[in-house]
Amino acid sequence: MSIKSFLIGSPIETVHEKHERLSKVMGLAVFSSDALSSVAYGTEEILFALVLGGAALLNDLVPIAVAIVILVAIVATSYYQTIREYPSGGGAYVVAKDNLGDYPGLIAGSALLIDYVLTVTVSVAAGIAAITSAFPVLLSHTVLLCLLSILVITIINLRGVRESGKIFSFPVYLFIGSILLLIGASFLKSFSAPPVQYQELKGTVSNVLPIFIILRAFASGCSTLTGIEAVSNGVRAFKPPEARNAGITLVWMALILGIMTLGIAYFAHYYRILPNENETVLSQLARTVFSKGVIYYTIQFATSLVLILAANTSYQDFPRLSSIMAGDRYLPRQLMNRGDKLVFSNGILILGFLSALLIMLFRGETHLLIPLYAVGVFTAFTLSQAGMVRHWIKRGGKGWLRGSVINGAGMVTTAVVLLIIAAEKFSHGAWIVLIAIPCLVLVTRKVHNHYLSVAQQLSMECITDIKEFGHHSVIVPVSGMQQAVLGAIKYSKALSDDVVAVYVCLDTVETEKMKGKWDKFCMGVPLVILESPYRSVVEPLIDYIDEIRNRYKDGVVTVVLPEFVPSKWWHHLLHNQTALFIKGVLLFKKGVVSTSVPFHLRG
Amino acid sequence: MSIKSFLIGSPIETVHEKHERLSKVMGLAVFSSDALSSVAYGTEEILFALVLGGAALLNDLVPIAVAIVILVAIVATSYYQTIREYPSGGGAYVVAKDNLGDYPGLIAGSALLIDYVLTVTVSVAAGIAAITSAFPVLLSHTVLLCLLSILVITIINLRGVRESGKIFSFPVYLFIGSILLLIGASFLKSFSAPPVQYQELKGTVSNVLPIFIILRAFASGCSTLTGIEAVSNGVRAFKPPEARNAGITLVWMALILGIMTLGIAYFAHYYRILPNENETVLSQLARTVFSKGVIYYTIQFATSLVLILAANTSYQDFPRLSSIMAGDRYLPRQLMNRGDKLVFSNGILILGFLSALLIMLFRGETHLLIPLYAVGVFTAFTLSQAGMVRHWIKRGGKGWLRGSVINGAGMVTTAVVLLIIAAEKFSHGAWIVLIAIPCLVLVTRKVHNHYLSVAQQLSMECITDIKEFGHHSVIVPVSGMQQAVLGAIKYSKALSDDVVAVYVCLDTVETEKMKGKWDKFCMGVPLVILESPYRSVVEPLIDYIDEIRNRYKDGVVTVVLPEFVPSKWWHHLLHNQTALFIKGVLLFKKGVVSTSVPFHLRG
Repeated sequence: MSIKSFLIGSPIETVHEKHERLSKVMGLAVFSSDALSSVAYGTEEILFALVLGGAALLNDLVPIAVAIVILVAIVATSYYQTIREYPSGGGAYVVAKDNLGDYPGLIAGSALLIDYVLTVTVSVAAGIAAITSAFPVLLSHTVLLCLLSILVITIINLRGVRESGKIFSFPVYLFIGSILLLIGASFLKSFSAPPVQYQELKGTVSNVLPIFIILRAFASGCSTLTGIEAVSNGVRAFKPPEARNAGITLVWMALILGIMTLGIAYFAHYYRILPNENETVLSQLARTVFSKGVIYYTIQFATSLVLILAANTSYQDFPRLSSIMAGDRYLPRQLMNRGDKLVFSNGILILGFLSALLIMLFRGETHLLIPLYAVGVFTAFTLSQAGMVRHWIKRGGKGWLRGSVINGAGMVTTAVVLLIIAAEKFSHGAWIVLIAIPCLVLVTRKVHNHYLSVAQQLSMECITDIKEFGHHSVIVPVSGMQQAVLGAIKYSKALSDDVVAVYVCLDTVETEKMKGKWDKFCMGVPLVILESPYRSVVEPLIDYIDEIRNRYKDGVVTVVLPEFVPSKWWHHLLHNQTALFIKGVLLFKKGVVSTSVPFHLRG
Repeated sequence: MSIKSFLIGSPIETVHEKHERLSKVMGLAVFSSDALSSVAYGTEEILFALVLGGAALLNDLVPIAVAIVILVAIVATSYYQTIREYPSGGGAYVVAKDNLGDYPGLIAGSALLIDYVLTVTVSVAAGIAAITSAFPVLLSHTVLLCLLSILVITIINLRGVRESGKIFSFPVYLFIGSILLLIGASFLKSFSAPPVQYQELKGTVSNVLPIFIILRAFASGCSTLTGIEAVSNGVRAFKPPEARNAGITLVWMALILGIMTLGIAYFAHYYRILPNENETVLSQLARTVFSKGVIYYTIQFATSLVLILAANTSYQDFPRLSSIMAGDRYLPRQLMNRGDKLVFSNGILILGFLSALLIMLFRGETHLLIPLYAVGVFTAFTLSQAGMVRHWIKRGGKGWLRGSVINGAGMVTTAVVLLIIAAEKFSHGAWIVLIAIPCLVLVTRKVHNHYLSVAQQLSMECITDIKEFGHHSVIVPVSGMQQAVLGAIKYSKALSDDVVAVYVCLDTVETEKMKGKWDKFCMGVPLVILESPYRSVVEPLIDYIDEIRNRYKDGVVTVVLPEFVPSKWWHHLLHNQTALFIKGVLLFKKGVVSTSVPFHLRG
């Protein structure tokens, strides 16, 4: 208990929930780290794809970046509309489910949940990779460092939304500031450094048609859009007016993302930077503009921090989305509850656990996972836009046409991008996501059906008259004369007047001894001796209980067992197995309740 | 249940226990397989040690074998005496504990228990190695084959003593017959084949003094003695008169072991057989005498069978010894019980589990374990003989002097051998056993202290008057209005007149709804609403229970919780967590009993 309060602090009262909300400044930090961190690798991904087509194609970098920024604008606009129309939190799951039906909603929700886990895994691994390439001594501890990072992020998130917002704001703004500084400085320097030609490229040029190379480059660059939906899932985390604040934050995020993407791409092209296995494009650009100095290292440091913090956005959205889905009974209901610090602690813990598991499974080598998550994001984008189009048509009224045109354009664009990504990345692992999403959908359906069936079984509708039990028989199985048995007998006397102690005879000598001792302590309770030719304690007992059940058809039987409560965990191995077994068997008998009377052992 | 009865057969009544006992013929097969199997490698071990000293030392093979057979005679004689003096089963543990005190007894018992596990592991691995060297295709499945063998031996032993005796008698007698045939044929052939000189030995001759080489050879050859104590631990498995039958079996076993050891050593020397990594000494001798034919292959087959079956002796003794130690409260008492087939099933299962674990840990490569188990055996020998010497002195009367001289000689000899083995094999892994034995002794002490402390806490001695409880309060925590709650309320009404339902308010709207629904179904039970500013369900409930406990100082409180009994295992994840948590907390409160009323879910 004290470790817990040391790690996550003292609990917060429910009435203070509104105080825990995020301002726009903090919200931008919390929800944009995933999207903004893609600036660190977006341009590079495009260049790596283009370079296969030879130097000529490298000139397409800027047009592709422009296309991506247009895509950002479309998606952001349509999410902005979604937030306005769903002020209580309108993620892809809610919008798709509300307008398109359960399955589209569940597909969107499952895709996002899987994505959040992947995002945590990939971004933590990427951040740690940045650190280990600076300090190769740490290389052999990659997995441990990843797990530690996940642990730290998990704990900080368990401390509450505001607190994690405070802690994580600084690195995000440091990153934004330093990238904007880099773009500004690149601009100033461009007056004194006229553009040069691309060097001759070594290596063979691919035979693929240029159009396919450009498409692949575009698909790779679309990883920039991951995380842009984060705000829409987290509207309820903002201070009121929630929708307005979330909307403004989304606009700012899209603006910053657009400027940074375009700026980096433009100057990477201007300074003719080539993709390089050993140095990131961002590092090359920073080195070209600033040389290796304080500013250069600050940019590198802020970049690796923001890569790790991209995980934090998932820590906001995974628990929130899973709590919404649990509220709709598609996930276990434990995910619905807010913990001591008003965050959805179970969701946070599960996210931490799953991503730690993935890290260990892939031993920190997560490049394999990178192509996977664009598929999930664009599935969610497409479904959410489609839902919005349907919403506008149903809603009608003022602005429905404009709204549906914007969302329709968004839907078509993201659907096309989804197809391109799925096709391009299918053999690189996208198929895993295309299997994982239906599996998760299936699980949510199973959970849902179970909860529905339970609700129906528990329903009070057909209940009219309630009768008390006609008789209450209490049976106390005893294995010898000792204080724990005495406790059970004494308790049984408080339950009913019909108490019987039962002793299974395994050894005639012992049985006679038992009979002799019984009278002194029996409190008037009769002792029944059961024969057991096969040495089973349980079977004769069950037979006896069945006999009593048959005798009093409208009655109830309570089986009272003494239970040792040891003071050390391993003492459990030395006690209670028979009692546990009896309880396990009785659990499935109707009209029988088994009760353990604890006997507390010392030392 | 039906799988169980298919595998191990239908249960046997307790009264038939005597019919399950072993005759001398079966007893010899069951208890001697461990000892006799050492004939398969004993001579070889000596030769491998001697060959390091050059050809001249090889002539010491026969004298060393004679020394070992004398040791066999001494140890067997003193165990024969032990059986006579301890007719109810006198293993090293019982004898040492009775005469020397708890610690020597526990050391002997622990050494034997560890040894039995090692014996199973090593002999199964050796048997499978014999098979895989005949069929190298199977080599990559070594671990699987070992585990399967352990599984089969475990299941056959669970079927009962007589049944395993029947199944395992044939290979043991086949082995005895074929080895005696080999010795006889060697003898006949020796008339036509006069002894030759040893070939010149290749390789460098060791610089170690010959006496140390001879000592090491002797220590290696002492592995022949492992298993000789088996009969003494299993006296109770024989038909009456148990001690007499066991004694006769022991004598026969020692005789056969002596003849076989001496015969193999003598003719291995006579035919100048050299140790060879690729072919066993036994195989070379059989090939020399019979050439490769049916008889040769029969010998090889019987040898590998008996190597695997050496494990079976441990399956007799481990469960028996652990049941005796559990009876003395040094091991968990579950080990005391006989299962359906009158064998100590839990001991058999634990032995199977532990040896399977060792197989997996060492991936079937168990040469490492071979030096380990001679240490345990000779520790047990020495302590048991020392105990017998003490026993004779205490007992006095007829024959005490002769008895104590024989056991004294045995004690000194085995103590010297123990020292030699421990010194020679210390760096080869004997230190592991020298750590494992004290650890196990410590565990048995801890278990013992716990059981003693519990017995004292349960003692009825100081109990004089027993009062009934002054009041019985029943508290039903409810989370909503549904049938499971109704079941809990109805049951509570059968327990006491003072029943109160308790609802924790997490949401004022829900609470009002609950109040509205309550009256219709409440059966006269009042509903108490508890406030919970920190959203905890458990804390306000515990506070309320404490309040009730304080109100009725001489009373008892029952907390009745509905418990869902799902029809599929994974549904557990979707229910009952809060109830489980409440029960866990209440377990440690005195004067509070928590009861679950099962609600059976369909589908």
